[in-house]
Amino acid sequence: MAPMECREESISYRPIGVIRSPHVDPRRTPIQPRYAAGIAGSIEIFPEFSAGLDDLEGFSHIVLLYHFHRSHGSRLRVVPYLDDEERGVFATRAPHRPNAIRMSVVRLVRREGNILHIEDIDALDGTPVLDIKPHVPRFGVEGAVRSGWLESVDEATATRRGRRDP
Amino acid sequence: MAPMECREESISYRPIGVIRSPHVDPRRTPIQPRYAAGIAGSIEIFPEFSAGLDDLEGFSHIVLLYHFHRSHGSRLRVVPYLDDEERGVFATRAPHRPNAIRMSVVRLVRREGNILHIEDIDALDGTPVLDIKPHVPRFGVEGAVRSGWLESVDEATATRRGRRDP
Repeated sequence: MAPMECREESISYRPIGVIRSPHVDPRRTPIQPRYAAGIAGSIEIFPEFSAGLDDLEGFSHIVLLYHFHRSHGSRLRVVPYLDDEERGVFATRAPHRPNAIRMSVVRLVRREGNILHIEDIDALDGTPVLDIKPHVPRFGVEGAVRSGWLESVDEATATRRGRRDP
Repeated sequence: MAPMECREESISYRPIGVIRSPHVDPRRTPIQPRYAAGIAGSIEIFPEFSAGLDDLEGFSHIVLLYHFHRSHGSRLRVVPYLDDEERGVFATRAPHRPNAIRMSVVRLVRREGNILHIEDIDALDGTPVLDIKPHVPRFGVEGAVRSGWLESVDEATATRRGRRDP
């Protein structure tokens, strides 16, 4: 398939549910679940998709894919929250991406019908959810990993900036 | 924001590039990078997005989010490749999802302009790419993890089925 075929296509998704969280101000929302430890929220899956949640409770963590509904406009170079230098947007998790898809791995506390109670939520209240997948460590990366510019950000700075503490 | 607002919306994305891989038959394509170890491929990022790749080479692994362009139709209950029992689709990585978004963490070998040379690719040739993010272990899950139904799949079975060996 030639790239040309893809360039012309637009791909449409419909939300399967919505995130409920205590975060209402984008400037004060943690930037990763790691910096939102213990913060409780829930996911309301629209009832017509509820059967797809069966068997999910066996997993302690789930991958949420969702749309950054408050991100407007994309930039190819951005200054990430954890640093002061401009970087290519694909080398960051910044919201201003060509396609504003975000990924968070959160703790699944329990399912109640079409509601998932979760912890470590770093997304704004009202965020539309596109997909949920089980978090599966055996599918993960093994061996040595390099983390580029993030290796020079010390833990105290990352935690302070990541939590978006005032 | 009431869930109703999200339900009516459709979210549109445009591919930022295309995956080049040796996989051309969906029935013989590995189901995870873990089962595609060492298989080389590349990502052609459309030139207008190339500047967004700056700084990415510092990372040994990248997260690819892409559209399962060969998945047609969604089901809420599926039999996953690694098992013989039907499960809720959100408790699996199966392709027949309400929104056919897939996620793979692959090895980044090198960047050459708008081309990323990668390894461990488990996606079909011609797959449209939606987003690229750096893989960052420090953002990952810490502590004990439960993997639900996948815990009862032994490693030999997972490897055989995961590679899609005939």
